[in-house]
Amino acid sequence: MTEDSIQRFHHVMPLQIRFNDIDKFGHVNNSIYFQYYDTAKIDYFDNVCENVDWNKIAIVAAKIETEFIAQVKADSHVEALTRVTRVGNKSFQLEQEIVSTDTHEVKSRCTSVMVLYDLEKSCSISFPNNWREAIYNYDGITPNN
Amino acid sequence: MTEDSIQRFHHVMPLQIRFNDIDKFGHVNNSIYFQYYDTAKIDYFDNVCENVDWNKIAIVAAKIETEFIAQVKADSHVEALTRVTRVGNKSFQLEQEIVSTDTHEVKSRCTSVMVLYDLEKSCSISFPNNWREAIYNYDGITPNN
Amino acid sequence: MTEDSIQRFHHVMPLQIRFNDIDKFGHVNNSIYFQYYDTAKIDYFDNVCENVDWNKIAIVAAKIETEFIAQVKADSHVEALTRVTRVGNKSFQLEQEIVSTDTHEVKSRCTSVMVLYDLEKSCSISFPNNWREAIYNYDGITPNN
Amino acid sequence: MTEDSIQRFHHVMPLQIRFNDIDKFGHVNNSIYFQYYDTAKIDYFDNVCENVDWNKIAIVAAKIETEFIAQVKADSHVEALTRVTRVGNKSFQLEQEIVSTDTHEVKSRCTSVMVLYDLEKSCSISFPNNWREAIYNYDGITPNN
Repeated sequence: MTEDSIQRFHHVMPLQIRFNDIDKFGHVNNSIYFQYYDTAKIDYFDNVCENVDWNKIAIVAAKIETEFIAQVKADSHVEALTRVTRVGNKSFQLEQEIVSTDTHEVKSRCTSVMVLYDLEKSCSISFPNNWREAIYNYDGITPNN
Repeated sequence: MTEDSIQRFHHVMPLQIRFNDIDKFGHVNNSIYFQYYDTAKIDYFDNVCENVDWNKIAIVAAKIETEFIAQVKADSHVEALTRVTRVGNKSFQLEQEIVSTDTHEVKSRCTSVMVLYDLEKSCSISFPNNWREAIYNYDGITPNN
Repeated sequence: MTEDSIQRFHHVMPLQIRFNDIDKFGHVNNSIYFQYYDTAKIDYFDNVCENVDWNKIAIVAAKIETEFIAQVKADSHVEALTRVTRVGNKSFQLEQEIVSTDTHEVKSRCTSVMVLYDLEKSCSISFPNNWREAIYNYDGITPNN
Repeated sequence: MTEDSIQRFHHVMPLQIRFNDIDKFGHVNNSIYFQYYDTAKIDYFDNVCENVDWNKIAIVAAKIETEFIAQVKADSHVEALTRVTRVGNKSFQLEQEIVSTDTHEVKSRCTSVMVLYDLEKSCSISFPNNWREAIYNYDGITPNN
Protein backbone atom coordinates (compact mmCIF):
# COMPACT_ATOMS: atom_id res chain seq x y z
CA MET A 1 0.00 0.00 0.00
CA THR A 2 2.81 2.39 0.80
CA GLU A 3 4.67 1.18 -2.29
CA ASP A 4 1.56 2.30 -4.10
CA SER A 5 2.07 5.87 -2.90
CA ILE A 6 5.49 6.04 -4.43
CA GLN A 7 4.12 4.71 -7.70
CA ARG A 8 1.31 7.26 -7.93
CA PHE A 9 3.75 10.18 -7.58
CA HIS A 10 6.33 11.19 -10.15
CA HIS A 11 7.73 14.16 -8.24
CA VAL A 12 9.91 13.10 -5.31
CA MET A 13 11.97 15.53 -3.23
CA PRO A 14 14.31 14.36 -0.45
CA LEU A 15 13.95 16.60 2.60
CA GLN A 16 16.72 17.90 4.82
CA ILE A 17 15.56 17.93 8.43
CA ARG A 18 17.01 20.82 10.40
CA PHE A 19 17.88 20.82 14.07
CA ASN A 20 15.44 23.69 14.44
CA ASP A 21 12.55 21.71 12.94
CA ILE A 22 12.31 19.72 16.17
CA ASP A 23 10.07 21.28 18.78
CA LYS A 24 9.85 20.97 22.54
CA PHE A 25 7.98 17.69 22.07
CA GLY A 26 10.98 16.07 20.38
CA HIS A 27 9.58 15.68 16.87
CA VAL A 28 9.24 17.81 13.75
CA ASN A 29 6.72 20.52 14.60
CA ASN A 30 3.50 20.42 12.61
CA SER A 31 4.14 23.90 11.17
CA ILE A 32 7.37 22.62 9.59
CA TYR A 33 5.49 20.05 7.50
CA PHE A 34 3.99 22.98 5.62
CA GLN A 35 7.49 24.29 4.90
CA TYR A 36 8.28 20.86 3.45
CA TYR A 37 5.07 20.81 1.42
CA ASP A 38 5.67 24.38 0.19
CA THR A 39 9.23 23.69 -0.88
CA ALA A 40 8.22 20.53 -2.75
CA LYS A 41 5.30 22.31 -4.43
CA ILE A 42 7.50 25.13 -5.69
CA ASP A 43 10.05 22.60 -6.95
CA TYR A 44 7.27 20.73 -8.76
CA PHE A 45 6.30 23.84 -10.71
CA ASP A 46 9.92 24.81 -11.38
CA ASN A 47 10.48 21.41 -12.91
CA VAL A 48 7.22 20.65 -14.66
CA CYS A 49 6.09 24.04 -16.00
CA GLU A 50 7.96 26.46 -18.23
CA ASN A 51 8.95 30.02 -17.43
CA VAL A 52 7.67 30.09 -13.88
CA ASP A 53 8.60 33.48 -12.42
CA TRP A 54 7.87 33.66 -8.69
CA ASN A 55 8.49 37.39 -8.77
CA LYS A 56 5.34 37.76 -10.85
CA ILE A 57 3.15 34.81 -9.93
CA ALA A 58 2.36 33.37 -6.53
CA ILE A 59 0.71 30.18 -5.43
CA VAL A 60 -1.74 31.03 -2.68
CA ALA A 61 -3.25 28.37 -0.44
CA ALA A 62 -7.03 28.40 -0.22
CA LYS A 63 -7.61 25.18 1.68
CA ILE A 64 -5.32 22.61 3.23
CA GLU A 65 -6.23 19.26 4.79
CA THR A 66 -3.43 17.40 6.48
CA GLU A 67 -3.17 14.12 8.30
CA PHE A 68 -0.25 13.46 10.63
CA ILE A 69 0.12 9.71 10.62
CA ALA A 70 3.53 9.05 12.17
CA GLN A 71 6.04 11.32 13.83
CA VAL A 72 9.13 12.55 12.02
CA LYS A 73 12.20 12.66 14.26
CA ALA A 74 15.58 14.35 13.98
CA ASP A 75 17.20 11.26 12.50
CA SER A 76 14.36 10.32 10.14
CA HIS A 77 15.03 10.15 6.42
CA VAL A 78 12.00 11.47 4.60
CA GLU A 79 10.99 12.75 1.21
CA ALA A 80 8.04 14.73 -0.13
CA LEU A 81 5.84 13.35 -2.89
CA THR A 82 3.80 15.84 -4.90
CA ARG A 83 1.23 15.55 -7.69
CA VAL A 84 -1.49 17.70 -9.12
CA THR A 85 -4.83 15.93 -9.07
CA ARG A 86 -7.04 18.55 -10.72
CA VAL A 87 -6.60 21.80 -12.60
CA GLY A 88 -9.62 24.07 -12.63
CA ASN A 89 -9.93 27.49 -14.19
CA LYS A 90 -8.30 29.48 -11.42
CA SER A 91 -7.67 26.91 -8.74
CA PHE A 92 -5.90 23.58 -8.74
CA GLN A 93 -5.65 20.69 -6.35
CA LEU A 94 -2.49 19.12 -4.99
CA GLU A 95 -1.93 15.82 -3.25
CA GLN A 96 1.25 15.51 -1.24
CA GLU A 97 2.77 13.02 1.13
CA ILE A 98 5.79 12.89 3.37
CA VAL A 99 7.12 9.35 3.41
CA SER A 100 10.06 7.49 4.87
CA THR A 101 12.81 7.31 2.26
CA ASP A 102 13.71 3.82 3.40
CA THR A 103 10.40 2.09 4.11
CA HIS A 104 7.99 4.34 2.17
CA GLU A 105 5.86 4.51 5.32
CA VAL A 106 3.53 7.49 4.99
CA LYS A 107 4.24 10.04 7.74
CA SER A 108 1.78 12.71 6.60
CA ARG A 109 -0.70 13.23 3.78
CA CYS A 110 -1.92 16.59 2.53
CA THR A 111 -4.50 17.66 -0.01
CA SER A 112 -4.75 21.31 -0.82
CA VAL A 113 -6.57 23.74 -3.05
CA MET A 114 -4.31 26.44 -4.40
CA VAL A 115 -4.88 29.55 -6.51
CA LEU A 116 -2.52 31.23 -8.96
CA TYR A 117 -2.13 34.88 -8.07
CA ASP A 118 -0.70 37.78 -10.08
CA LEU A 119 1.63 39.64 -7.73
CA GLU A 120 1.68 42.79 -9.87
CA LYS A 121 -2.08 43.09 -10.42
CA SER A 122 -2.93 41.64 -6.98
CA CYS A 123 -5.59 39.29 -8.27
CA SER A 124 -6.04 35.61 -8.99
CA ILE A 125 -5.41 34.52 -12.56
CA SER A 126 -6.42 31.73 -14.92
CA PHE A 127 -4.23 28.69 -15.07
CA PRO A 128 -1.97 28.96 -18.16
CA ASN A 129 -2.83 26.38 -20.81
CA ASN A 130 0.76 25.32 -21.43
CA TRP A 131 1.25 24.69 -17.70
CA ARG A 132 -1.95 22.67 -17.59
CA GLU A 133 -0.77 20.50 -20.45
CA ALA A 134 2.68 20.05 -19.00
CA ILE A 135 1.12 18.93 -15.72
CA TYR A 136 -1.33 16.59 -17.45
CA ASN A 137 1.56 14.98 -19.26
CA TYR A 138 3.79 14.81 -16.21
CA ASP A 139 1.25 13.34 -13.83
CA GLY A 140 -0.74 11.42 -16.42
CA ILE A 141 -4.04 13.20 -15.82
CA THR A 142 -6.79 12.78 -18.39
CA PRO A 143 -8.36 16.17 -19.23
CA ASN A 144 -11.91 15.33 -18.09
CA ASN A 145 -10.75 14.51 -14.56
CA MET B 1 -21.51 36.81 10.89
CA THR B 2 -17.96 37.71 11.80
CA GLU B 3 -19.19 39.27 15.02
CA ASP B 4 -20.65 35.86 15.65
CA SER B 5 -17.18 34.31 15.54
CA ILE B 6 -15.97 36.51 18.31
CA GLN B 7 -18.99 35.61 20.41
CA ARG B 8 -18.56 31.87 19.99
CA PHE B 9 -14.99 32.01 21.27
CA HIS B 10 -13.93 32.81 24.82
CA HIS B 11 -10.20 32.46 24.28
CA VAL B 12 -8.70 35.35 22.36
CA MET B 13 -4.96 35.85 21.82
CA PRO B 14 -3.55 38.91 20.03
CA LEU B 15 -0.80 37.89 17.64
CA GLN B 16 2.50 39.64 17.03
CA ILE B 17 3.39 39.46 13.37
CA ARG B 18 7.12 39.18 12.78
CA PHE B 19 9.05 40.59 9.86
CA ASN B 20 10.15 37.04 9.11
CA ASP B 21 6.55 35.77 8.89
CA ILE B 22 6.22 37.46 5.51
CA ASP B 23 7.33 35.33 2.59
CA LYS B 24 8.48 36.12 -0.93
CA PHE B 25 4.84 36.62 -1.94
CA GLY B 26 4.47 39.56 0.48
CA HIS B 27 2.05 38.02 2.95
CA VAL B 28 2.23 35.83 6.03
CA ASN B 29 3.35 32.41 4.81
CA ASN B 30 0.85 29.61 5.26
CA SER B 31 3.23 27.65 7.52
CA ILE B 32 3.27 30.57 9.97
CA TYR B 33 -0.50 30.31 10.56
CA PHE B 34 0.22 27.00 12.22
CA GLN B 35 2.71 28.69 14.54
CA TYR B 36 -0.08 31.11 15.45
CA TYR B 37 -2.58 28.29 15.95
CA ASP B 38 -0.06 26.29 18.02
CA THR B 39 0.79 29.20 20.27
CA ALA B 40 -2.88 30.00 20.88
CA LYS B 41 -3.68 26.35 21.57
CA ILE B 42 -0.93 26.03 24.15
CA ASP B 43 -2.07 29.26 25.80
CA TYR B 44 -5.63 27.94 25.89
CA PHE B 45 -4.54 24.89 27.89
CA ASP B 46 -2.23 26.91 30.14
CA ASN B 47 -5.18 29.14 31.04
CA VAL B 48 -8.12 26.76 31.13
CA CYS B 49 -6.64 23.55 32.57
CA GLU B 50 -4.75 23.01 35.81
CA ASN B 51 -1.20 21.74 36.20
CA VAL B 52 -0.39 21.45 32.54
CA ASP B 53 3.26 20.37 32.32
CA TRP B 54 4.53 20.45 28.73
CA ASN B 55 7.66 18.61 29.84
CA LYS B 56 5.49 15.57 30.49
CA ILE B 57 2.51 15.90 28.18
CA ALA B 58 2.40 16.88 24.52
CA ILE B 59 -0.44 17.79 22.23
CA VAL B 60 0.09 15.98 18.96
CA ALA B 61 -1.82 16.93 15.81
CA ALA B 62 -3.62 14.07 14.08
CA LYS B 63 -5.60 16.00 11.50
CA ILE B 64 -5.78 19.65 10.53
CA GLU B 65 -8.15 21.33 8.08
CA THR B 66 -7.47 24.96 7.32
CA GLU B 67 -9.11 27.55 5.13
CA PHE B 68 -7.16 30.63 4.09
CA ILE B 69 -9.83 33.24 3.48
CA ALA B 70 -7.98 36.55 3.34
CA GLN B 71 -4.28 37.40 3.33
CA VAL B 72 -2.52 38.64 6.46
CA LYS B 73 0.02 41.35 5.72
CA ALA B 74 2.94 42.80 7.70
CA ASP B 75 0.80 45.65 9.02
CA SER B 76 -2.33 43.59 9.79
CA HIS B 77 -3.62 43.45 13.34
CA VAL B 78 -4.88 39.96 14.01
CA GLU B 79 -5.79 37.71 16.88
CA ALA B 80 -6.34 33.98 17.30
CA LEU B 81 -9.62 32.59 18.60
CA THR B 82 -9.57 29.10 20.08
CA ARG B 83 -12.21 26.77 21.45
CA VAL B 84 -12.54 23.08 22.09
CA THR B 85 -15.56 21.63 20.33
CA ARG B 86 -15.36 18.02 21.45
CA VAL B 87 -13.41 15.96 23.97
CA GLY B 88 -13.23 12.23 23.24
CA ASN B 89 -11.42 9.59 25.21
CA LYS B 90 -7.96 10.16 23.80
CA SER B 91 -8.53 12.77 21.13
CA PHE B 92 -10.15 16.17 21.16
CA GLN B 93 -11.27 18.62 18.55
CA LEU B 94 -10.30 22.28 18.28
CA GLU B 95 -11.83 25.09 16.29
CA GLN B 96 -9.64 28.10 15.70
CA GLU B 97 -9.80 31.29 13.71
CA ILE B 98 -7.47 34.12 12.90
CA VAL B 99 -9.46 37.32 12.67
CA SER B 100 -8.79 40.99 12.16
CA THR B 101 -8.58 42.66 15.57
CA ASP B 102 -10.32 45.74 14.22
CA THR B 103 -13.03 44.42 11.90
CA HIS B 104 -13.34 40.81 13.10
CA GLU B 105 -13.02 39.73 9.46
CA VAL B 106 -12.07 36.05 9.41
CA LYS B 107 -8.65 35.57 7.77
CA SER B 108 -8.34 31.84 8.36
CA ARG B 109 -10.32 29.06 9.97
CA CYS B 110 -8.89 25.81 11.29
CA THR B 111 -10.41 22.66 12.74
CA SER B 112 -8.09 20.06 14.11
CA VAL B 113 -8.08 16.72 15.86
CA MET B 114 -5.42 16.50 18.52
CA VAL B 115 -4.20 13.73 20.80
CA LEU B 116 -2.70 13.98 24.28
CA TYR B 117 0.64 12.23 24.39
CA ASP B 118 2.75 11.12 27.35
CA LEU B 119 6.32 12.21 26.60
CA GLU B 120 7.88 9.86 29.15
CA LYS B 121 5.96 6.73 28.19
CA SER B 122 5.82 7.66 24.48
CA CYS B 123 2.15 6.83 24.07
CA SER B 124 -1.18 8.61 23.77
CA ILE B 125 -3.12 9.04 27.01
CA SER B 126 -6.70 9.50 28.14
CA PHE B 127 -7.95 13.02 28.52
CA PRO B 128 -7.86 13.93 32.25
CA ASN B 129 -11.32 14.34 33.73
CA ASN B 130 -10.54 17.59 35.51
CA TRP B 131 -9.28 19.12 32.26
CA ARG B 132 -12.41 17.96 30.46
CA GLU B 133 -14.62 19.59 33.07
CA ALA B 134 -12.61 22.80 33.06
CA ILE B 135 -12.93 22.96 29.27
CA TYR B 136 -16.66 22.20 29.34
CA ASN B 137 -17.14 25.01 31.79
CA TYR B 138 -14.91 27.45 29.95
CA ASP B 139 -16.36 26.90 26.48
CA GLY B 140 -19.90 26.04 27.59
CA ILE B 141 -19.96 22.55 26.09
CA THR B 142 -22.69 20.17 27.17
CA PRO B 143 -21.27 16.71 27.94
CA ASN B 144 -23.26 14.80 25.30
CA ASN B 145 -21.82 16.92 22.50
CA MET C 1 23.37 48.34 35.51
CA THR C 2 20.44 46.65 33.84
CA GLU C 3 18.30 49.69 34.65
CA ASP C 4 20.89 51.54 32.67
CA SER C 5 20.10 49.50 29.58
CA ILE C 6 16.49 50.49 29.67
CA GLN C 7 17.47 54.13 30.04
CA ARG C 8 19.83 54.12 27.08
CA PHE C 9 17.12 52.81 24.76
CA HIS C 10 14.05 54.71 23.66
CA HIS C 11 12.59 52.02 21.44
CA VAL C 12 11.07 49.15 23.40
CA MET C 13 9.06 46.31 21.82
CA PRO C 14 7.41 43.59 23.91
CA LEU C 15 7.95 40.18 22.31
CA GLN C 16 5.44 37.37 21.97
CA ILE C 17 7.16 34.04 22.48
CA ARG C 18 5.69 31.29 20.33
CA PHE C 19 5.44 27.64 21.22
CA ASN C 20 7.51 26.93 18.12
CA ASP C 21 10.34 29.22 19.28
CA ILE C 22 11.39 26.60 21.81
CA ASP C 23 13.77 24.01 20.47
CA LYS C 24 14.67 20.48 21.51
CA PHE C 25 16.86 21.92 24.28
CA GLY C 26 13.83 23.54 25.98
CA HIS C 27 14.67 27.19 25.40
CA VAL C 28 14.22 29.76 22.66
CA ASN C 29 16.47 28.66 19.81
CA ASN C 30 19.31 31.02 18.95
CA SER C 31 17.99 31.54 15.40
CA ILE C 32 14.75 32.94 16.84
CA TYR C 33 16.57 35.77 18.60
CA PHE C 34 17.34 37.12 15.13
CA GLN C 35 13.63 37.07 14.30
CA TYR C 36 13.08 39.13 17.44
CA TYR C 37 15.89 41.53 16.54
CA ASP C 38 14.63 41.82 12.96
CA THR C 39 11.07 42.55 13.98
CA ALA C 40 12.17 45.20 16.47
CA LYS C 41 14.52 46.80 13.95
CA ILE C 42 11.78 47.10 11.32
CA ASP C 43 9.43 48.56 13.92
CA TYR C 44 12.09 51.07 14.91
CA PHE C 45 12.31 52.37 11.35
CA ASP C 46 8.53 52.33 10.87
CA ASN C 47 8.18 54.51 13.94
CA VAL C 48 11.20 56.81 13.78
CA CYS C 49 11.61 57.46 10.03
CA GLU C 50 9.10 58.85 7.55
CA ASN C 51 7.79 57.12 4.42
CA VAL C 52 9.61 53.84 4.90
CA ASP C 53 8.49 51.55 2.08
CA TRP C 54 9.80 48.00 2.53
CA ASN C 55 8.69 47.16 -0.99
CA LYS C 56 11.37 49.51 -2.27
CA ILE C 57 14.05 49.56 0.40
CA ALA C 58 15.55 46.70 2.35
CA ILE C 59 17.79 46.59 5.39
CA VAL C 60 20.51 44.05 4.73
CA ALA C 61 22.70 42.70 7.51
CA ALA C 62 26.45 42.96 6.89
CA LYS C 63 27.75 41.93 10.31
CA ILE C 64 26.10 40.74 13.49
CA GLU C 65 27.69 40.10 16.88
CA THR C 66 25.48 38.53 19.49
CA GLU C 67 25.97 37.49 23.07
CA PHE C 68 23.59 35.00 24.65
CA ILE C 69 23.72 35.81 28.34
CA ALA C 70 20.71 34.03 29.85
CA GLN C 71 18.22 31.57 28.40
CA VAL C 72 14.73 32.65 27.37
CA LYS C 73 12.09 30.07 28.22
CA ALA C 74 8.51 29.51 27.06
CA ASP C 75 7.10 31.42 30.01
CA SER C 76 9.62 34.29 29.99
CA HIS C 77 8.39 37.83 29.50
CA VAL C 78 10.87 39.67 27.35
CA GLU C 79 11.13 42.78 25.26
CA ALA C 80 13.53 44.02 22.59
CA LEU C 81 15.43 47.29 23.00
CA THR C 82 16.75 48.94 19.84
CA ARG C 83 18.84 52.00 19.13
CA VAL C 84 20.98 53.27 16.32
CA THR C 85 24.50 54.06 17.50
CA ARG C 86 26.03 55.35 14.27
CA VAL C 87 24.87 56.35 10.81
CA GLY C 88 27.51 56.26 8.11
CA ASN C 89 27.12 57.04 4.45
CA LYS C 90 25.71 53.70 3.36
CA SER C 91 25.88 51.62 6.49
CA PHE C 92 24.57 52.15 10.00
CA GLN C 93 25.12 50.46 13.31
CA LEU C 94 22.46 49.08 15.63
CA GLU C 95 22.63 48.07 19.25
CA GLN C 96 19.89 45.80 20.49
CA GLU C 97 19.10 43.88 23.63
CA ILE C 98 16.54 41.35 24.71
CA VAL C 99 15.72 41.94 28.35
CA SER C 100 13.34 40.56 30.92
CA THR C 101 10.25 42.78 31.00
CA ASP C 102 10.01 42.37 34.75
CA THR C 103 13.59 42.52 36.02
CA HIS C 104 15.35 44.17 33.05
CA GLU C 105 17.92 41.37 33.20
CA VAL C 106 19.75 41.30 29.87
CA LYS C 107 19.18 37.98 28.10
CA SER C 108 21.02 38.80 24.89
CA ARG C 109 22.91 41.71 23.40
CA CYS C 110 23.46 42.33 19.70
CA THR C 111 25.42 44.88 17.71
CA SER C 112 25.05 44.86 13.98
CA VAL C 113 26.14 46.70 10.89
CA MET C 114 23.36 47.10 8.39
CA VAL C 115 23.16 48.50 4.86
CA LEU C 116 20.23 50.18 3.12
CA TYR C 117 19.49 48.43 -0.14
CA ASP C 118 17.40 49.53 -3.12
CA LEU C 119 15.25 46.54 -4.08
CA GLU C 120 14.44 47.88 -7.55
CA LYS C 121 17.98 48.83 -8.55
CA SER C 122 19.58 45.95 -6.59
CA CYS C 123 22.30 48.08 -5.03
CA SER C 124 23.10 49.66 -1.69
CA ILE C 125 22.03 53.29 -1.26
CA SER C 126 23.02 56.33 0.78
CA PHE C 127 21.25 56.85 4.05
CA PRO C 128 18.51 59.49 3.51
CA ASN C 129 19.26 62.74 5.32
CA ASN C 130 15.78 63.10 6.79
CA TRP C 131 15.98 59.59 8.27
CA ARG C 132 19.39 60.37 9.71
CA GLU C 133 18.06 63.50 11.39
CA ALA C 134 14.98 61.72 12.69
CA ILE C 135 17.20 59.01 14.20
CA TYR C 136 19.62 61.53 15.70
CA ASN C 137 16.71 63.28 17.36
CA TYR C 138 15.06 60.09 18.52
CA ASP C 139 18.13 58.43 20.00
CA GLY C 140 19.90 61.63 21.01
CA ILE C 141 22.98 61.11 18.86
CA THR C 142 25.31 64.04 18.23
CA PRO C 143 26.28 64.27 14.54
CA ASN C 144 30.02 63.79 15.03
CA ASN C 145 29.50 60.42 16.69
CA MET D 1 41.38 32.12 -1.52
CA THR D 2 37.94 30.57 -1.54
CA GLU D 3 39.48 27.25 -2.47
CA ASP D 4 41.43 27.69 0.70
CA SER D 5 38.21 27.73 2.75
CA ILE D 6 37.17 24.40 1.41
CA GLN D 7 40.60 22.98 2.22
CA ARG D 8 40.61 24.17 5.81
CA PHE D 9 37.29 22.44 6.52
CA HIS D 10 36.72 18.72 6.63
CA HIS D 11 33.03 18.82 7.49
CA VAL D 12 30.86 19.83 4.54
CA MET D 13 27.06 19.75 4.56
CA PRO D 14 24.99 20.59 1.48
CA LEU D 15 22.03 22.78 2.43
CA GLN D 16 18.48 22.52 1.15
CA ILE D 17 17.03 26.00 0.72
CA ARG D 18 13.32 26.14 1.48
CA PHE D 19 10.78 28.39 -0.18
CA ASN D 20 10.06 29.76 3.29
CA ASP D 21 13.70 30.74 3.87
CA ILE D 22 13.25 33.66 1.50
CA ASP D 23 11.96 36.81 3.14
CA LYS D 24 10.15 39.87 1.85
CA PHE D 25 13.48 41.19 0.57
CA GLY D 26 13.85 38.27 -1.83
CA HIS D 27 16.84 36.53 -0.25
CA VAL D 28 17.44 34.05 2.53
CA ASN D 29 16.60 35.85 5.76
CA ASN D 30 19.50 36.37 8.15
CA SER D 31 17.80 34.33 10.89
CA ILE D 32 17.77 31.30 8.57
CA TYR D 33 21.57 31.28 8.32
CA PHE D 34 21.60 30.33 11.98
CA GLN D 35 19.32 27.38 11.24
CA TYR D 36 21.88 26.32 8.62
CA TYR D 37 24.77 26.80 11.05
CA ASP D 38 22.91 24.93 13.80
CA THR D 39 22.06 21.99 11.60
CA ALA D 40 25.64 21.69 10.35
CA LYS D 41 27.02 21.98 13.88
CA ILE D 42 24.80 19.19 15.18
CA ASP D 43 25.76 17.01 12.21
CA TYR D 44 29.43 17.68 12.92
CA PHE D 45 29.10 16.32 16.45
CA ASP D 46 26.95 13.38 15.35
CA ASN D 47 29.67 12.39 12.91
CA VAL D 48 32.87 13.23 14.74
CA CYS D 49 32.08 12.38 18.37
CA GLU D 50 30.85 9.13 19.86
CA ASN D 51 27.61 8.57 21.75
CA VAL D 52 26.23 12.07 21.42
CA ASP D 53 22.79 12.07 23.01
CA TRP D 54 20.94 15.34 22.41
CA ASN D 55 18.31 14.31 24.95
CA LYS D 56 20.94 14.64 27.66
CA ILE D 57 23.43 17.18 26.36
CA ALA D 58 22.81 20.48 24.64
CA ILE D 59 25.09 22.86 22.81
CA VAL D 60 24.28 26.37 23.98
CA ALA D 61 25.50 29.42 22.10
CA ALA D 62 27.37 31.97 24.23
CA LYS D 63 28.60 34.30 21.51
CA ILE D 64 28.13 34.43 17.75
CA GLU D 65 29.82 36.71 15.25
CA THR D 66 28.57 36.53 11.70
CA GLU D 67 29.46 38.28 8.47
CA PHE D 68 27.00 38.32 5.61
CA ILE D 69 29.17 38.66 2.53
CA ALA D 70 26.89 37.81 -0.39
CA GLN D 71 23.18 37.13 -0.61
CA VAL D 72 21.80 33.61 -0.85
CA LYS D 73 18.84 33.37 -3.22
CA ALA D 74 16.12 30.78 -3.75
CA ASP D 75 18.05 29.11 -6.56
CA SER D 76 21.50 29.25 -4.94
CA HIS D 77 23.36 26.02 -4.28
CA VAL D 78 25.16 26.33 -0.99
CA GLU D 79 26.82 24.19 1.62
CA ALA D 80 27.91 24.70 5.21
CA LEU D 81 31.50 24.20 6.28
CA THR D 82 32.18 23.55 9.95
CA ARG D 83 35.28 23.10 12.05
CA VAL D 84 36.21 23.38 15.69
CA THR D 85 39.06 25.80 16.23
CA ARG D 86 39.51 25.52 19.98
CA VAL D 87 38.30 23.31 22.82
CA GLY D 88 38.49 24.83 26.27
CA ASN D 89 37.42 23.30 29.53
CA LYS D 90 33.72 24.07 29.27
CA SER D 91 33.49 26.11 26.11
CA PHE D 92 34.63 25.53 22.57
CA GLN D 93 34.95 27.64 19.49
CA LEU D 94 33.50 26.94 16.06
CA GLU D 95 34.27 28.43 12.69
CA GLN D 96 31.65 28.02 10.02
CA GLU D 97 31.06 29.24 6.51
CA ILE D 98 28.26 29.08 4.00
CA VAL D 99 29.76 28.83 0.53
CA SER D 100 28.55 28.39 -3.00
CA THR D 101 28.68 24.69 -3.89
CA ASP D 102 29.76 25.53 -7.41
CA THR D 103 32.19 28.42 -7.05
CA HIS D 104 33.17 28.10 -3.37
CA GLU D 105 32.40 31.84 -3.04
CA VAL D 106 31.95 32.58 0.67
CA LYS D 107 28.41 33.84 1.35
CA SER D 108 28.68 34.08 5.12
CA ARG D 109 31.26 33.42 7.81
CA CYS D 110 30.51 32.70 11.46
CA THR D 111 32.64 32.20 14.53
CA SER D 112 30.95 31.18 17.71
CA VAL D 113 31.66 30.26 21.28
CA MET D 114 29.52 27.38 22.49
CA VAL D 115 29.07 25.66 25.83
CA LEU D 116 28.14 22.05 26.54
CA TYR D 117 25.13 21.91 28.81
CA ASP D 118 23.70 19.03 30.84
CA LEU D 119 19.94 19.04 30.22
CA GLU D 120 19.15 16.90 33.25
CA LYS D 121 21.28 18.80 35.78
CA SER D 122 20.69 22.19 34.09
CA CYS D 123 24.32 23.24 34.19
CA SER D 124 27.28 23.54 31.88
CA ILE D 125 29.67 20.59 31.81
CA SER D 126 33.28 19.88 31.01
CA PHE D 127 34.11 18.86 27.49
CA PRO D 128 34.49 15.04 27.39
CA ASN D 129 38.09 13.98 26.72
CA ASN D 130 37.19 11.41 24.09
CA TRP D 131 35.21 14.03 22.15
CA ARG D 132 38.12 16.44 22.39
CA GLU D 133 40.49 13.85 20.98
CA ALA D 134 38.12 12.86 18.21
CA ILE D 135 37.77 16.52 17.23
CA TYR D 136 41.53 17.12 17.37
CA ASN D 137 42.04 14.16 15.08
CA TYR D 138 39.23 15.11 12.72
CA ASP D 139 40.15 18.76 12.30
CA GLY D 140 43.89 18.34 12.77
CA ILE D 141 44.18 20.58 15.81
CA THR D 142 47.35 20.44 17.89
CA PRO D 143 46.50 20.32 21.62
CA ASN D 144 48.25 23.53 22.60
CA ASN D 145 46.19 25.57 20.16
